[in-house]
This record gives sequence, C-alpha cells and structure tokens, in this order.
Amino acid sequence: MAKLYSSFVSKTQQIADIGNSIAVLSWDKEVNLPKGSARFRSQQISTLATLAHSFAVDKKYRRLVEKLAADKSLNRQQKKNVKLTLESIEKATKFDSAFVKRRSELVSQAYHDWVKAKEANDHTVFLPALEKLLVLNKEEAEILGYKKHPYDALLDIYEPKLTVAKLDGLFKPLKRDLKKILRKINATKQIDNTFLFKRYSKNTQWQYGLDILEQIGYDFNIGRQDISIHPFTTSFSSQDVRVTTRIDENDFSNMLWSCIHEGGHALYEMGLPAEQYGLPLGEAVSLGIHESQSRLWENNVGRSLPFWKHNFKSLKKKFPKQLEGVSLRKFYKAINKVSPNLIRTEADELHYHFHVIIRYEIEKELMEGTISVNDIKTQWNKKYKSYLGVDVPDDARGMLQDIHWSHGSFGYFPTYSIGSLYAAQLYVQAKKDIEGLETQISKGNSTPLLAWLRENIHIHGRMYHPEQLCKRITGEGLNSKYFLKYAMEKYSDVYGIR
Amino acid sequence: MAKLYSSFVSKTQQIADIGNSIAVLSWDKEVNLPKGSARFRSQQISTLATLAHSFAVDKKYRRLVEKLAADKSLNRQQKKNVKLTLESIEKATKFDSAFVKRRSELVSQAYHDWVKAKEANDHTVFLPALEKLLVLNKEEAEILGYKKHPYDALLDIYEPKLTVAKLDGLFKPLKRDLKKILRKINATKQIDNTFLFKRYSKNTQWQYGLDILEQIGYDFNIGRQDISIHPFTTSFSSQDVRVTTRIDENDFSNMLWSCIHEGGHALYEMGLPAEQYGLPLGEAVSLGIHESQSRLWENNVGRSLPFWKHNFKSLKKKFPKQLEGVSLRKFYKAINKVSPNLIRTEADELHYHFHVIIRYEIEKELMEGTISVNDIKTQWNKKYKSYLGVDVPDDARGMLQDIHWSHGSFGYFPTYSIGSLYAAQLYVQAKKDIEGLETQISKGNSTPLLAWLRENIHIHGRMYHPEQLCKRITGEGLNSKYFLKYAMEKYSDVYGIR
Repeated sequence: MAKLYSSFVSKTQQIADIGNSIAVLSWDKEVNLPKGSARFRSQQISTLATLAHSFAVDKKYRRLVEKLAADKSLNRQQKKNVKLTLESIEKATKFDSAFVKRRSELVSQAYHDWVKAKEANDHTVFLPALEKLLVLNKEEAEILGYKKHPYDALLDIYEPKLTVAKLDGLFKPLKRDLKKILRKINATKQIDNTFLFKRYSKNTQWQYGLDILEQIGYDFNIGRQDISIHPFTTSFSSQDVRVTTRIDENDFSNMLWSCIHEGGHALYEMGLPAEQYGLPLGEAVSLGIHESQSRLWENNVGRSLPFWKHNFKSLKKKFPKQLEGVSLRKFYKAINKVSPNLIRTEADELHYHFHVIIRYEIEKELMEGTISVNDIKTQWNKKYKSYLGVDVPDDARGMLQDIHWSHGSFGYFPTYSIGSLYAAQLYVQAKKDIEGLETQISKGNSTPLLAWLRENIHIHGRMYHPEQLCKRITGEGLNSKYFLKYAMEKYSDVYGIR
Repeated sequence: MAKLYSSFVSKTQQIADIGNSIAVLSWDKEVNLPKGSARFRSQQISTLATLAHSFAVDKKYRRLVEKLAADKSLNRQQKKNVKLTLESIEKATKFDSAFVKRRSELVSQAYHDWVKAKEANDHTVFLPALEKLLVLNKEEAEILGYKKHPYDALLDIYEPKLTVAKLDGLFKPLKRDLKKILRKINATKQIDNTFLFKRYSKNTQWQYGLDILEQIGYDFNIGRQDISIHPFTTSFSSQDVRVTTRIDENDFSNMLWSCIHEGGHALYEMGLPAEQYGLPLGEAVSLGIHESQSRLWENNVGRSLPFWKHNFKSLKKKFPKQLEGVSLRKFYKAINKVSPNLIRTEADELHYHFHVIIRYEIEKELMEGTISVNDIKTQWNKKYKSYLGVDVPDDARGMLQDIHWSHGSFGYFPTYSIGSLYAAQLYVQAKKDIEGLETQISKGNSTPLLAWLRENIHIHGRMYHPEQLCKRITGEGLNSKYFLKYAMEKYSDVYGIR
C-alpha cells in the first residue's frame, strides 16, 4: 500500500507541477510580457490548463484514489490528502466536458465584453454576457448541490462550508454596529492626511517596501518583488513565493500597505509544508483564511501604533521633507483616516465591509431570482447611497468596477470581509497567547507573531476546514464581534469617539 | 482531409505549447529564480518534458501523421510540416522509454560530477560519468543509424545532413590557411586594446546595449533583455523572443558583442513565420544556421568598420573618458585584436575555429574508439599547444571548461564553426544582392540586410535543410573559402599583413 500511496503522490504532484507551471506563465504575463507578445501566451496557458484538468479527472487516477480512500493503514495526514483529493475529483467530474468548454468560452467572451463595457462606461454592454454567466452559475449550483440556498454551493467553492445563513449571521451585527461607528466618526473633525499625497519618489518607496517586507519575515531567499499593474501574490511552491506591487509617486499609501498585504499572503504560502508539495496538505485552506493573513499584517499590524512606533523614525529618514513636522500620532491618524468612497479596492477598513456586503446582497438575490441582471445597476447605486452615502456617478465606478463577475465568479467577494473578521479574531488570540506581542512589534520584532501563525495556521495546510481551524485556535467559530471590538478600540483612539 | 490536417496542427501546437512553457520556466530559472527556490523547479520542468515526449510519441498521433503523409491533396508547406514531423516521431520512437530514462538520469549525474570536477579542478572526477555518456552516445548512434561514420549520426542531430566527410573537407583548408594567417599576424606589432578594459559603468553599458539591439532591428515590442550569468536567447513563439546579457565593468567587449550575438539569434527567431507556430516550418532549421545569424551580426557587421563609422560617435558620447584620444581606426583594430587563449567562449574570430576543431577531432576519435576518455586530457593539452601555442595550466581551463559533454552532447561543437563559415558565405552573397549594403550600414541602416535575411532564411523555417538553403541563396554548398577570404581581407587591414 505504501507503493500505492507513493504513486498517488507522484501523480498528484504531476498535476500540481502543471498548475505551478501555469502560475509561472501567468506571473510572467503580468510582470514581464512584452507588449506585443500576448498572442500565443493564452494558448500556452490554456493547453496546460486542459492537460491539468484531464489528468485530474482521469479514470485511472480516480480509481487509484478511491482504492486508497478505503485503505486503513494510511496515517492521518495521508488519509486527509486522499480524502480531499477524492472530493476534488468528485467535484470536478460532476461537470462534463461540454459544460467546462461552455464555461471557458463564456468567460473569455464575458471578460472581453466587460473590458469594452468599462471603456464605454456603459453597463448594458456587459449585461447579455452577465445574464449568461448567471444562468451558468445557477446551473453550477444545481450540479454541485446545496442544502438550503443555491448561493451556498458557490460560496463553498471559495470558502469551504460557508453558507448564506452564516454570512447573514455575521453581516447583520457588522452592518448595524459599523453604521453606528461611522455615524460617530462622521460627527468628528476630519483628519488631515494630505502629507501622504506629497511626492514620494519611486525608488525610495520601492526600497522602503523591500525593507518592510523583510522586517515582517518575507524571505527574499525564496521570493522576490516585482512591479505589475495590479499587486498580487503567486506561488510556484512554498519555496518560490513572489509578490508584486505598484507605485504611485503621489500617493504613499498605495504601495506600502499593498506591500504588507501581499507580504501577508506570501508569508502564508511560504509557511505551507514543503514536504506536502502538490498535495492538499501543502495548500492554503481557503480564500478567507488567506485574506485573514494579508489583512492581519496589513491592518492589525501594519496600521497599528506599535508597528509605527518602531518604523516611523526610519520612514522619516527616507522621506524627511514629505514628513517634516508630522508626528507619529499624526501619521498614525492619517493612515487610519476613514471616509466613504466609490471604489472597493481603495476603501478604508470600515467602509470596506459595505462594499462587500453590497456585492453579497446583490449576488444572493440574483441567485435567488428575486432580482435580475437588469436590476443590478439600480440596486448597486441605491445601496451605495444608503450604506456609504455616496452617489455613483457612472457605471465604470459603479457595478463595472470589479473584474470578478467577468470571470464568472459569484461568491468570491464575501471572502474579503471574512478575511478581515478572521484577522481580528485571530489577532485577539495571538495577543493572548504571545506575551508582550505588541511590545515586541513596537521593537520591530514580529517574529513571535509569524511563528504563532506558522504553528497555528500555515503548517496545517488544508488539514482543518476554516471554521474548524478557527475553533481550534480561538475556541469558537468566526464571530464578527472581534472585528467590531477592534474597530471600536482603534477608532476611539484615532477619532476620539466613544 | 482539411479537418485531419487541422487536427494535426492543433495536436502539434499543443506539444509546442508544452515545449514553450518549459522555455518560460527555464528562462525564469536563469533570470529570476530566487537563490533558494531551485527545489521544485527542476521537477516542474521534468514533468512538462515527460508530457511533451509522451505526446510526441503517442501512437494515435503517429497514425494521424502517417495518414496525412499519404495524403496528396496537401499543399507544399503542409506536406513539409507533415514529413518533418513524421521524421521526428520516427527518430523519437527509436528510443524506448528505458533508454530515455537512463539517458536523463545519466545526464543529471554527469552534470553534477562535472560541476564537482570543475570546482575541484580535477578531470578524473568527471571521467567515470563521461565514459558512460560516451557509451550511451555510441549506442545512440547505432540506434539512429549512419552510413559511414558513427559520429555522423550525432552530427545530424544538431545539423541535419552534416557528416564527418563534410567537416573534414571544411576544416582541412581552414586549419591550413588560418595557421598561415596567424603566423603572419604573430609576426606583426601587437595591437593596443587596453582602453577596452578601463571602467565602463554598468548602467551606461546596459543602455548602450539596448540602443544597439534596437538599431539592428531587435523588436522590443515582442522582446526584452535581462541579465543572466551566461548570455542566451530564448523564444516562446516568434512573437516573444528574449535575450539576456551580462556586464563586466572592466571589460567593455564582454557585453556589447554578446548583445549583438544574441540579438542575431533573436532576429532569426523573430523572423520565423508566426502562422506556422509550433510546426516545423515555424522552427529554425539548424544550430549551424542559427549560429550563422548570430555570428553575422556579431562579427561581419558588429566588428566591421562601416558599423562603427556610424556608431563610434555615439559610443564616445557615452564613454568620453574611457575613449579619450581613441580614433575610430584605433577602436576598430582593438575590437579585432587576435591572440591565442585558453577559453573557447573568449576566443577571437580566428582562434575560435581551433577551439572547435580540437573538440571535433577528440569527439570523432572517441566515437571511432581510437582514443578513450582517459586520453582526452593528453590530447586536449597537446592540441592546444600545437594549434594555439598555449600551455593548459589546469583542467578547469582545459577539458572541463565547457558544459556540453556534461549534457551528453557530442557533435554540438562543430555547429559553432559551421555558423561562422555560413555567416561569411551568406554575407558575401548579401553584399552582391543588396546594392550599397555597407554604405547603408555605415549610415546606421541595417534594415536592407535584415530584410534580406528574413526573405532568404528566416521566413522559410525548416523548409530547406541547411545545405539546400545555402545552395538556394549562394549557388553552392558550404565552403570555407569565403570565411578565409573574409579573414584575409579583414586582418590585412587590421594587421597590415598580406
């Protein structure tokens, strides 16, 4: 049986090798591809994707995995790898090749239409494709199956075991209490953060970003940072994890917190067990937990007073003119300024959740059939007015702003909020478990925190599903009260509210 | 039948997609890979290589190609694609998977041993692996088959139709006449090229290299240059062709002519017909013809007086101090300085052939069995003394200097000389065909030359084998007299010999 398991490992790793090759080609596409070189790259990626899929649903491979699933001599980790692989196979084989082909053709058409619609600033250009994608997602939900709500089937793709019921339970108090906090904030004096929009030179920003990445534990021996239009993290194994960033000379925040955010994602990937390469236990457990790692470093650490107690001096040295006369406290307040806006990716920590909730509510109702794609714009704009108090001036800055729907991804957005909520809950636990955690951070030492994340989260790969993992670590399932407590504490300090 | 051909194209392109993905992963390995990230990269490349091979020798694919080979309705280009593909399949299927596996294992062991041997500066560390590789190459020759000499089978891998008989015919006058020329050069005054070894700043060299690449027609819209330890050209399609270089601040020649050399390779790849992507007619015809393109640009153009008539002014602007008091003529002589040396890759245009001939003679005798691997060192050192007049001080600078044997490549070296010979013969023809070619070059306009190469060589892919191609263009097969005439003319001018 040892031989059977090892041939399972080698076949599974082969599929992972192809997947990681796709990741290399995609990274290269975003980071290095010459302008005129797109022509054959998509074809190359698509050939590899087709291969990986055909191997993953190969009947002989499935029989091997099924045989192993019945094997009682495997150890706990081996069993888990086999079980999760079998689940993936079962999921993948639910879709016949005609469906897969239709989906892939539809997505490339939809992406094309979305780009055109955004350029034309006209949502109606995107609606026909979006309608087809919705139909497809409904079909997909039926094929995958669900207990209560068709949307549950889609949520589960990105965040195992996540359901509408759970999300409603999380979002209800979140909406209510965040509104209260924001009302209080709005009643106070505006924070001055104009010095963050002075000219910060590219090279110095770049170097500072590298320094901060190194400080939080990003290992440049097995990683590198490059420039791309949209910052992202990618991994070709836990031993080769790369981040990208972008630099805006007139907006200091743009790069630095995206650096720390991607750094957080990367630390998770770097912490996955290398000996489980290509196997489920060598993979991140969910998008929500992944996002919890990036948010924890970006917000709970990277926008905290202890972090800047240590780093503000070196930052001032790099940018003496831009930060002349700015105190640590003024800086801390500025980087935590709260104000409603139109674009999700530019939102502050508090408003961010409303951006997500709006998308969640719309997707849920679309899946229920209580609204149609023709209603999205009205719903979108109404909700932005009601939740964020902003008027949506056009479609490009409205319902066309995100790429996700053009990829056919429904159920993805909630993982962003889930990530923040997990981050807050985990950070509370980390402070309990690590004596003097924030004192250490204020001395520039985040090693104890990284070690804690490694031990409690990273090293387990997909051994526990997100909710299980959260319970193991914090003693309870995800609860939005931790985020709300964190928000109240932080913004009491920043805005003097109570 | 049109449907059959199109399914042949799609299957063949799929194999090419995998091959090009390997090329991306390999490029990334040389250019970007973080120091500690090697662990899974070789496995990823090897998985893709195994896949590509298994598809290439797939029985269903072979039947498809065989069926098409009997189809008379195909046009000339289609026929050629089918014929060359069938030949490749037949060649590949001659080796059973046990042989392929043995070869690949042996090569990784041999590479490892070679690195160790070079570090230890001790050829005996490499000999056992080299002996096994020789045995393997002999087997390979028998499997592939040959008419006269076992070495012919290996030569044909890199340069279709090249044989020992042909090479002996080319090398005999080359050896004889080059010796005469070198004797005359040695009797003249040494050229002063010390100003090429002043400090040339990295950034300015880099920028100058980019300018020169652009000038010779390298298209940065579908290409890019990066830094790597050993300069190379790679291509992921004719629409994505990348070069690398290295910079030595204390040796100006190191980068610039390597830039032009790789640029020449790249111009060939960029000139291959995009509509034949992945098919034989979209591929370069041979290593020798490839090398002819790099050498033609590097030497016939890049070390010529007309080229520097145009460029010397801009070079002096970039490096005014380093080139103070250096005239165009002095510069031209310096960049064509001839002197014997130990290392092939650092040799001048004339001595280069002796480096190759030494390797050729040794490989030939190894394949004949007239010498054994134990004799290589003695033979090597004796020949270096006799042909180049230099004493080989150690193994690292002797028989261990090249990577080729560690890859199991016997028969590769001759293509380097063949490339120079082709370059000279082609350049003579280009000057006949293009009125005022060198006047144009002296005005910074090499477009007519590139257009000529495109039309006569690049666009044909593998339509004609090298000798055919040469006959079509120049009216005769490869003849070393053109190189000798070029050398005599150039060095008469540079050294005043007659």
